[in-house]
Amino acid sequence: MWDSVGMGEKLRQTGFHLHRMVTYEANDDRSGIKATKQGSDIPASSARYLYEIVLDPKDIERLMRESLSEQGIQVEQPVVPQQFRIINESGPNDEYVVEVTCVHLKAEHVRTSRLPLTSRNELADIPECLAKVESIRAKYVVGCDGARSWVRQQCGITMDDLGGTVVAENSKPAIGEVWGAMDLKPITDFPTPLAKNIIQSPLVGLVATVPRPGNRIRIYGQLQDDSLVNDGNVSAVQLADILMATFSRGFQPYSMAAEDITWCSHYRARQRIASTFSHAQRVFIAGDACHVHSPNAGQGLNFSMADAYNLAWKLAYSLRGRAGNALLDTYETERRPCSITLIELDMEIQRLIRSPSTSIPEQYMSLLERQNAFTSGIGVQYDSRLTVPDFQDLACGLVLGQRLPHAEILRYDSWSRCSLLDTISYQMAFKLLIFPGDITLPAVGASFREFIERCASSKEVGNGDVQLGAILSVSHGTVLAEAGVVSEPVLRASQNDGRTTGSLYRSLRISTESGAAALVRPDGHVALIIPVASRELARVWKYLSEL
Amino acid sequence: MWDSVGMGEKLRQTGFHLHRMVTYEANDDRSGIKATKQGSDIPASSARYLYEIVLDPKDIERLMRESLSEQGIQVEQPVVPQQFRIINESGPNDEYVVEVTCVHLKAEHVRTSRLPLTSRNELADIPECLAKVESIRAKYVVGCDGARSWVRQQCGITMDDLGGTVVAENSKPAIGEVWGAMDLKPITDFPTPLAKNIIQSPLVGLVATVPRPGNRIRIYGQLQDDSLVNDGNVSAVQLADILMATFSRGFQPYSMAAEDITWCSHYRARQRIASTFSHAQRVFIAGDACHVHSPNAGQGLNFSMADAYNLAWKLAYSLRGRAGNALLDTYETERRPCSITLIELDMEIQRLIRSPSTSIPEQYMSLLERQNAFTSGIGVQYDSRLTVPDFQDLACGLVLGQRLPHAEILRYDSWSRCSLLDTISYQMAFKLLIFPGDITLPAVGASFREFIERCASSKEVGNGDVQLGAILSVSHGTVLAEAGVVSEPVLRASQNDGRTTGSLYRSLRISTESGAAALVRPDGHVALIIPVASRELARVWKYLSEL
Repeated sequence: MWDSVGMGEKLRQTGFHLHRMVTYEANDDRSGIKATKQGSDIPASSARYLYEIVLDPKDIERLMRESLSEQGIQVEQPVVPQQFRIINESGPNDEYVVEVTCVHLKAEHVRTSRLPLTSRNELADIPECLAKVESIRAKYVVGCDGARSWVRQQCGITMDDLGGTVVAENSKPAIGEVWGAMDLKPITDFPTPLAKNIIQSPLVGLVATVPRPGNRIRIYGQLQDDSLVNDGNVSAVQLADILMATFSRGFQPYSMAAEDITWCSHYRARQRIASTFSHAQRVFIAGDACHVHSPNAGQGLNFSMADAYNLAWKLAYSLRGRAGNALLDTYETERRPCSITLIELDMEIQRLIRSPSTSIPEQYMSLLERQNAFTSGIGVQYDSRLTVPDFQDLACGLVLGQRLPHAEILRYDSWSRCSLLDTISYQMAFKLLIFPGDITLPAVGASFREFIERCASSKEVGNGDVQLGAILSVSHGTVLAEAGVVSEPVLRASQNDGRTTGSLYRSLRISTESGAAALVRPDGHVALIIPVASRELARVWKYLSEL
Repeated sequence: MWDSVGMGEKLRQTGFHLHRMVTYEANDDRSGIKATKQGSDIPASSARYLYEIVLDPKDIERLMRESLSEQGIQVEQPVVPQQFRIINESGPNDEYVVEVTCVHLKAEHVRTSRLPLTSRNELADIPECLAKVESIRAKYVVGCDGARSWVRQQCGITMDDLGGTVVAENSKPAIGEVWGAMDLKPITDFPTPLAKNIIQSPLVGLVATVPRPGNRIRIYGQLQDDSLVNDGNVSAVQLADILMATFSRGFQPYSMAAEDITWCSHYRARQRIASTFSHAQRVFIAGDACHVHSPNAGQGLNFSMADAYNLAWKLAYSLRGRAGNALLDTYETERRPCSITLIELDMEIQRLIRSPSTSIPEQYMSLLERQNAFTSGIGVQYDSRLTVPDFQDLACGLVLGQRLPHAEILRYDSWSRCSLLDTISYQMAFKLLIFPGDITLPAVGASFREFIERCASSKEVGNGDVQLGAILSVSHGTVLAEAGVVSEPVLRASQNDGRTTGSLYRSLRISTESGAAALVRPDGHVALIIPVASRELARVWKYLSEL
């Protein structure tokens, strides 16, 4: 996802690369902990990058701001919404039917205020904090405003448990439901600070650490006695003291002190899901506004970004008049079931954490390994009317509804290596990826040429709605243009199968004698598969006309 | 080399990545050319980066200036030397015994002058070009001033042919010895502009192209009629016309026109070597000042950088009083034989080019493939008193005198992947790389601990003359610190064998039961191998004391 919006390299350069996971459980006399198992912390074995990237939310936000700024977009802050209404529910898509009143706050007052981010709305009531009041007319509103989403509340969308029961916002936490977290630079003789550590201490319960850039770590820990942090009046300094006292005992017999605590917080591990993700096809919610869960699976930002990534291209299509409102409905159809899966995973982790088992860390590690196709996003499969369930057998490895997989291919012109994923960029166009097979076979070559010519002369390719790409399966040394098999302009757009000829076709289970073509959405998910036969192209044009 | 001075990543980002090589020979009716063979253009199969990087010399110079600037070093230009003398030949190393008079030129006059770089000295005679005259007292002088080196001439060092015969600077070129070259953005239907192309045209002889960043290429071509370019009075515009007329015929039946010619030149493919590389142990020459050859093997900058890389750390050792003048003598002992090998390769290429063969490109491609260990620098082996020829059998894959090979290893603390080459940085210290073997075997573990302890308590390690590194061979999941095998501080400095346990030891042919330790020079060449036994460490201390 990040690569497709041009931010992957910056994130890789800025973040800590997390490769290793270690579990610690009670030592023999239960006076402290000992390492029990270690393994690779990888998102999924089929992932392009075989590690996790960890960086501060503020750095991710900075990089996003910089990236937007390069495209001339400035994010205004601090701005809080005050009210909104839909003026004309039945108005056409391109009409500005939502009116939002926003208050621009004075940055200096926000900085000096002790209010948490989630209570920032309250500042709007203090006259000296106000810079200006602005009324905005919008076509759409997207509320990415967190677990206590104001947008969600304005729309009257309830938060439910998985049984569908509405849950009050301020229910009382159960024992062990409260966790603390803090960022610090450790002074320690703990052996594996650069790994993700899952620790079950016989003294304080579960503690986990995740390394961050600059030799820093984040420590998460279960609070057995949460009365102190739950009275609501504890200061950040007091909270840090409480957390550090608990956490440091959790590392015994190793010492653990903090040189520089930059952040600490406490949170409840609970699960909620919004009853709907949109309102009147004009207002959408995304991220924590849709789904509340613990950070135990490391899915907060990852999963929320995927919400926005699913929604943004659909909004763009609607705004440019290339699709109707029905496309917007697929946002909820696709993302809500995934959110339920995520919440179920979070509940499974929580059941494990609260179980009487003495080997929670090892079981947690196995659970993460089993679920990594889902948590990495690679295995997320969308089942909506945007997925056409035909011809899957032509390319079993290109799973309809899933993202295009990573596989190494060679650019035909330069032989530089790239990933199949590099054929996707998060722009407006759908991509028609043609796997013609071995085009040095006369019949295959002929079908491919006819298919390409028919594509090239279509209005959909002509006006840029669809971009073409071809992945050939020919041996490294074949000089195709010279052999007259296909024209050079076609080859310039082509990539070849990976380092070993035929390996990609084999892994995608595409026949080199008959091939397959896949229509891929702007977000990289496989929408439609057809045979490489020009008469079948009608399916593609029909699909696009009915978006 | 570039990675070890912190410039590798920038060069990779800036340069074109060259992966592909294609040969073209006469087509059937000899009216033009056709592609005959293609292959990977890789420096050597054991290289860390399996492609060549191509970028403009001006960009390389800019990146070097930026890199120096980050360390507070500014390169002054335009400055030309006027005279120099050695005041006290027998003075101690740290005395400023060389006096050099330099003229700072006014940049605006240099820009408007039509003089080539090599004739810039002449500007010093024109009063209005002079900014200031400066007298510098130096400990050493290094002349990296090209094929017509002024420094070399001042020292009276002759340029010889390989037979040792002195060759006059201005001998007349033989037929076919003159080549033209130009940089341009091609307008072409030539099929493989992003490959390195070796073309034998039946119409104009040999033509070669190398892609450059920004969809540009450099074309080299043999000039059959060199009278026009050899009268010495041809302007750059005239030369470009002459070259383009020849080159474009060479691509027939493909069209080849130039959109933007930024540089063109002509040169003689001839071979010379300096009779000595230094003068009075105070003045050194490097690069083209030492060896003149054609660009046909692509070795100009590559080989010259390796000269400087070999010399610089030795000068630093001498300047800091950590070695005597004998260390400086090894510069010539090591680099002159390599220069001869290079010149022999260049002559072999030239013999091939002038041969009556009709398949010169294919033979050229084979020759480059055979020679790629040498041309990539990976196979360059230094045979001087700095290479101690004992114990090679303990680690046959760490060839004494050669650079440390690339191999993937894991950092023990974070499991992040890196190269064995990353253990080298071009700083002052030698590195003692310890391959203890499988330290979970009690005897191996005991030897390793004793060896490490003896190292750590030595003055050489204490004062930073030697840095320690350990490459372990234990399976991925072993938690060594927890198992008490070695102390955590040792492990923090350790790397593990590659992705597959034992693969590195196998490829280096080091026994996991007895191990080996290698002393590596600041420039990454393997100097000395010893068993992992503390009594053998005396060999290391002796080596360093006799530098």
